[in-house]
Amino acid sequence: MNQPKDGEELIFVPLGGAGEIGMNLNLYGYGTEAHRQWIMVDLGVMFGDDDTPGIDIIMPDPGFIEERRHQLLAIVLTHAHEDHIGAVAHLWPRLRVPVYATPFTAALVRGKLEEQGLLDEVPLKIVPLGGELQLGPFSLEFIDVTHSIPEPNCIAIRTPLGVVLHTGDWKIDPQPLVGRKTNIDALRKLGEEGVLAAICDSTNVFVPGRSGSEGEVATRLEAVIAMCKGRVAVTAFASNVARLQSIVRAGAKLGRHVALVGRSMHKITAAAIETGYLKDLPAFINEEAAMTLPPGKVLYVCTGSQGEPRAALARIASGEHPTVTLGPGDTVIFSSRVIPGNEKTIHALHNDLSQRGVEVISAEDHDVHVSGHPARDELADMYAWLRPRVAVPVHGEIRHLSEHVRLAKSLQVPQALLAPNGSIVRLAPGPATIVDEAPHGRLHLDGIILTQGDDSSTKERRAISHAGHIAVTVILDERGRALLDPVVIAAGVPQEAVDSARSAAAEAISRLERRRLDDDRPIIEEVRRAVRRAVQDAWGKRALVHVEVARAG
Amino acid sequence: MNQPKDGEELIFVPLGGAGEIGMNLNLYGYGTEAHRQWIMVDLGVMFGDDDTPGIDIIMPDPGFIEERRHQLLAIVLTHAHEDHIGAVAHLWPRLRVPVYATPFTAALVRGKLEEQGLLDEVPLKIVPLGGELQLGPFSLEFIDVTHSIPEPNCIAIRTPLGVVLHTGDWKIDPQPLVGRKTNIDALRKLGEEGVLAAICDSTNVFVPGRSGSEGEVATRLEAVIAMCKGRVAVTAFASNVARLQSIVRAGAKLGRHVALVGRSMHKITAAAIETGYLKDLPAFINEEAAMTLPPGKVLYVCTGSQGEPRAALARIASGEHPTVTLGPGDTVIFSSRVIPGNEKTIHALHNDLSQRGVEVISAEDHDVHVSGHPARDELADMYAWLRPRVAVPVHGEIRHLSEHVRLAKSLQVPQALLAPNGSIVRLAPGPATIVDEAPHGRLHLDGIILTQGDDSSTKERRAISHAGHIAVTVILDERGRALLDPVVIAAGVPQEAVDSARSAAAEAISRLERRRLDDDRPIIEEVRRAVRRAVQDAWGKRALVHVEVARAG
Repeated sequence: MNQPKDGEELIFVPLGGAGEIGMNLNLYGYGTEAHRQWIMVDLGVMFGDDDTPGIDIIMPDPGFIEERRHQLLAIVLTHAHEDHIGAVAHLWPRLRVPVYATPFTAALVRGKLEEQGLLDEVPLKIVPLGGELQLGPFSLEFIDVTHSIPEPNCIAIRTPLGVVLHTGDWKIDPQPLVGRKTNIDALRKLGEEGVLAAICDSTNVFVPGRSGSEGEVATRLEAVIAMCKGRVAVTAFASNVARLQSIVRAGAKLGRHVALVGRSMHKITAAAIETGYLKDLPAFINEEAAMTLPPGKVLYVCTGSQGEPRAALARIASGEHPTVTLGPGDTVIFSSRVIPGNEKTIHALHNDLSQRGVEVISAEDHDVHVSGHPARDELADMYAWLRPRVAVPVHGEIRHLSEHVRLAKSLQVPQALLAPNGSIVRLAPGPATIVDEAPHGRLHLDGIILTQGDDSSTKERRAISHAGHIAVTVILDERGRALLDPVVIAAGVPQEAVDSARSAAAEAISRLERRRLDDDRPIIEEVRRAVRRAVQDAWGKRALVHVEVARAG
Repeated sequence: MNQPKDGEELIFVPLGGAGEIGMNLNLYGYGTEAHRQWIMVDLGVMFGDDDTPGIDIIMPDPGFIEERRHQLLAIVLTHAHEDHIGAVAHLWPRLRVPVYATPFTAALVRGKLEEQGLLDEVPLKIVPLGGELQLGPFSLEFIDVTHSIPEPNCIAIRTPLGVVLHTGDWKIDPQPLVGRKTNIDALRKLGEEGVLAAICDSTNVFVPGRSGSEGEVATRLEAVIAMCKGRVAVTAFASNVARLQSIVRAGAKLGRHVALVGRSMHKITAAAIETGYLKDLPAFINEEAAMTLPPGKVLYVCTGSQGEPRAALARIASGEHPTVTLGPGDTVIFSSRVIPGNEKTIHALHNDLSQRGVEVISAEDHDVHVSGHPARDELADMYAWLRPRVAVPVHGEIRHLSEHVRLAKSLQVPQALLAPNGSIVRLAPGPATIVDEAPHGRLHLDGIILTQGDDSSTKERRAISHAGHIAVTVILDERGRALLDPVVIAAGVPQEAVDSARSAAAEAISRLERRRLDDDRPIIEEVRRAVRRAVQDAWGKRALVHVEVARAG
């Protein structure tokens, strides 16, 4: 490793993921302020919810690095989950740098680039498992780790000012079933070499003990399926290829033929098979063939564990699926966790299935799932191996990062830093310090338009979802007198309140006619105020009222 | 007990609570079809969520019994939780029958009636604890039970056709701290007398083991508070008077003065003190006095454990509370469960507190809460005491009721019936059977208007929250030609889509001008179609478009 030069600094900037579990975007910078070079680790999305009505996809605002994109060397991806790769196809056109990933991750990114018509433009470069990569002043080493998807990687980033370990998403699974085990030797060796900073996953910092193993889940799933008599459908995250393999093997052992149901199941298995996973498995049968088999001979593996309304399981539960029907005697197994925020949707799905007489088994009552993230004892192991000088927790809400800081300190890490999104952290030289704040925020994919996260149309939608919208058009003649009654158009407002609005608008106009009506502004203000007051009286709520004036002649 | 006469039947009809945890409304009917008399047990609300934007309170539609209100003898309340009493003040004017409750419940109902100006009208009658009551053919006995509020009651309903036990909400708490213990003797005796049907709480049917005791929580809370150095705020459900007492006692023992923060804390403690609870406690101090004490001498008890935005804790977390400020070194203890659906809101509150450096302790990581509902072993006890001929689970979603049916069968109850809201269940004579369906549904309190749950304005609000609203006013002259450009007013739609809508509306009008424009309908249709298409092209979403035509002359 070269010696650092005067004025050179090692910088870390999280633009996403240090404030939420989702939409990761991490920047590492090296050099003097005038000559700094950057790499980006991960570029993910998260999904909208009821706080962002009408928004499906949210991603970090890359503005800070977009302004410096001539200093950006590459995007490096740790693994193929959406919260780490989902924004690549949306934001690459603003960055235009090479993208590095291991084979399975690259296969899934390629699919996304193809959908966006970007495949020929993006230099997508494959790094072998355990591979190394030199990017300007950064020497990268990919270190095998385990997680709930094939090919998760920790990335060791060596610089003249020290070594950073960016963990990505990880756990310690002694029996991952698919792919390699955590390369504990490499992590220990790194610790002996001396680690400046560990930038580490905080998702399960509140969970005591260990996360458990895919091997244990495989055994338990087989035991649960063995007790079932009718049709069985298991729903799991499609990207958990090890889980999928366990389900298929259990099915084969119990004399059940396995059919995949749902688009992303097919997409992920194709990528897995293409990159050498899921070998030596019995062939899948298709949904139509499954229909003709006796119930005890069928095992479906479905998308939709989070209650997604268009996914396979929701359509099965509502009786709208074209080929799969479940009823009394059949069982659905949720081999998945409940992502916070999805509780009600998932329980509604349980209710729909129960209503049909289907028995529902989930991780709430049977141990048919393990998390892909490290629980506290695993975090303790990682810090013991690495012995970093500084811990900078990422991949968590503020509550997770705060708790992770407390945990790291309790584990004798000399310094632990709460660095939320936008923090410009100088990792070296000197103690790690937040030296400045980078502009940061969220972009919303609203339909096909990429908007600033706090844009006015999302805010308006939130407002009108509570108290409706009333649009009033005032039509005046050339002398500024009412030519017609005002036109009142409402959405989401009860009829009695709309009637009141209409009368109030008409009355306001006739009051106004006694004054000069050259200027639109006082008309708009007066009508709006009158309508709002009338609606409030009739309904007890404050609708969003828009008034426009149209003048003839 | 009298002998039943020919043609007499005992009927059970749940109109609320057998399909959701919340808004309980249970009807018991006795007599021949021509001469039937009814009693109502509980009349509660539930709270709106993101599925019902703009709706705070939801209650069962009482239409079925409203039509028969001359046959309704009384409303009987089991306990004072909102999901059992919250709709009394809203729906009593439609029913106009006496209301029976034990003293603490009556005190809280009285407060609600006062707020609605109904106090002088409603015959509110107090039943002593363990009291009896004759209502037409029904002989009622109130049986002490334990729950998370003072004075919960099981109600034994004796009729000529048999005895029903309506459990209400209950658990078996060997150390309830406030109020009496579960009257196990009375329940056993009832079992010996012979129970026809048990209508039983299903809330925690998925929870193995036992719910635990308020006594244990008191010990653990004291241990947790003893470890805290700075200010401590505990948030709990205001109605859990035993919990409140435990917090106050722990504070006193540890040298902390206790201040109540939040309106409902004051309301409930007043009712509790009025009815003889919370005696022998050290006096509360007020919030202002607490400010002047050293941090280690203060203990706040706050409302807002569910993240309610206007409650005390949310205002403390956002730094907007007028008297209470928390920061580094201080601790907030959530001595409460997370009501499903509130996860994100509560976690946002944890994040706000963590951001201020406040340590957050919750039932997720410390045992500082127990549920008020029976876990599986307690349900097994109840069925062993009662040995009913039929189990009809209530107080649950369909998934809870289904599992409760399975559990009851496994406990050798001869018959267990899934009877969702609206089921008209003939309990006797003969085996319990659903003989018909009663009209049932939900009423929404929308602002100050009580609407049908599925009314069009709520549906419209849900639609516009996703894709916005566009109101187009077409202004024609007396000959049916455009007098002015169409006026386009939008809410929740990005500007580029509004611009497209405006052009599309104008173009549609000029196309239409070439045809006869006497009739508004084709104009409205054509403009709407053009605007929707333009918005879809520009935005990728289908806005709600309303068009009106105004004609001059």
